[in-house]
Amino acid sequence: MKKLVLLRHGESIWNLENRFTGWTDVDLTEKGVTEAARAGDVLKESGFLFDKAYTSFLKRAVKTLNVVLERLDQEWIPVEKSWRLNEKHYGTLQGLNKSETAEKYGEAQVLAWRRSYDTAPPALAENDPRNPRKELRYAGIPSEEIPLTESLKDTIERLLPYWRKAILPELQRQSQILVVAHGNSLRGVIKHLKEIPDDEIVHLNLPTGIPYVFEFDEGLNLLRDYMLGDPDEIRKQMDAVAAQGKK
Amino acid sequence: MKKLVLLRHGESIWNLENRFTGWTDVDLTEKGVTEAARAGDVLKESGFLFDKAYTSFLKRAVKTLNVVLERLDQEWIPVEKSWRLNEKHYGTLQGLNKSETAEKYGEAQVLAWRRSYDTAPPALAENDPRNPRKELRYAGIPSEEIPLTESLKDTIERLLPYWRKAILPELQRQSQILVVAHGNSLRGVIKHLKEIPDDEIVHLNLPTGIPYVFEFDEGLNLLRDYMLGDPDEIRKQMDAVAAQGKK
Repeated sequence: MKKLVLLRHGESIWNLENRFTGWTDVDLTEKGVTEAARAGDVLKESGFLFDKAYTSFLKRAVKTLNVVLERLDQEWIPVEKSWRLNEKHYGTLQGLNKSETAEKYGEAQVLAWRRSYDTAPPALAENDPRNPRKELRYAGIPSEEIPLTESLKDTIERLLPYWRKAILPELQRQSQILVVAHGNSLRGVIKHLKEIPDDEIVHLNLPTGIPYVFEFDEGLNLLRDYMLGDPDEIRKQMDAVAAQGKK
Repeated sequence: MKKLVLLRHGESIWNLENRFTGWTDVDLTEKGVTEAARAGDVLKESGFLFDKAYTSFLKRAVKTLNVVLERLDQEWIPVEKSWRLNEKHYGTLQGLNKSETAEKYGEAQVLAWRRSYDTAPPALAENDPRNPRKELRYAGIPSEEIPLTESLKDTIERLLPYWRKAILPELQRQSQILVVAHGNSLRGVIKHLKEIPDDEIVHLNLPTGIPYVFEFDEGLNLLRDYMLGDPDEIRKQMDAVAAQGKK
């Protein structure tokens, strides 16, 4: 049997400050590091031994992965990083507090920006200091492919080529793959795997630091999926994520 | 100008206990983590921005690299791990205390095992629990290529194909490359780059946690090499490494 594990990074400084993060490269909080360690321990107790791991270009995901691999005693496995696993780009909202943004634009508009499938926040101007096209980190990528804002649909559309070209073929060759990424890029993977409709995927609130396991047969047919951890704890965390956009 | 930086991992638990480590996967000490952080800070102050990093399959090197990349704020760069960058395999000596081994076999024999160019310690038996051919980590490598003991010559011979096939072509394409590895695998790189004779390379005692910089012109001709840090501190550390095999 083949297994794919999706893991959303632990709490980041801007999760804690309730700010739109997107492609901003903020660090994990101490709680975030603890969440990552716990996820590693849960995976170890469940006997996971990964063949390869994938993560984004953002340190909150890279560090979560590093901590998980330390706890698994698997620092030696190959790790591949891709900007296509990055969080949804939040355009000009990046850096703004979610509650303040709700005060200013109304909860409905914020909910649309956060949770509608195809509404993108206002795009960054080319001369905005937050423009990722000017960052060394994205220098190897054709400028027009780098987003200045994204809807969830956009995020999924730039994620799927990487899923098809990199992760899926590896899952065909190997038996256990780990992907540590972000709320919205992982929504893309889950939507694809479970064929969730556009209007439903926005209601899936992935908790941080909880490994989400997908089991496949050798032909890569999905057999079952489940989260690793205490069900009550998982439910509480999913509700907390859903409540972040309220005033 | 192109730059290659070689970095030996920080102090490990068995460095501290003065035991032969080789391919044993021991962790860094707290001092080792601090050394890694200092190396990262020195590199940052010197303005290094790496295009790619290489390390071994051993956690003391991987973790050193992770800490360096955190301090450089460069967690996002690609990292490639290879068993060919592993420390010299110390055969049956792995796990033994260096001073006790000197008492038992004499300083001259220990010095030969540690520092002669082509004398290997006694090989591990196939059924030895330390046999790396039985480890999952090396499962992707043809069994006969995995050593059961090594002389420095052997270490360099298995390192150089990786240097030529992976690191050197990348240095041709990129401008700054970081290699975090071990005393003896890095000796191999240095011997090759500086054309150091067999009987002299054994006297090069690379300090832990001190970045060693090699500068090249665009044609990859070596222009100069130097260590980053306080010269007195570097000298003291090199002497301490040289003294480890004494009773």
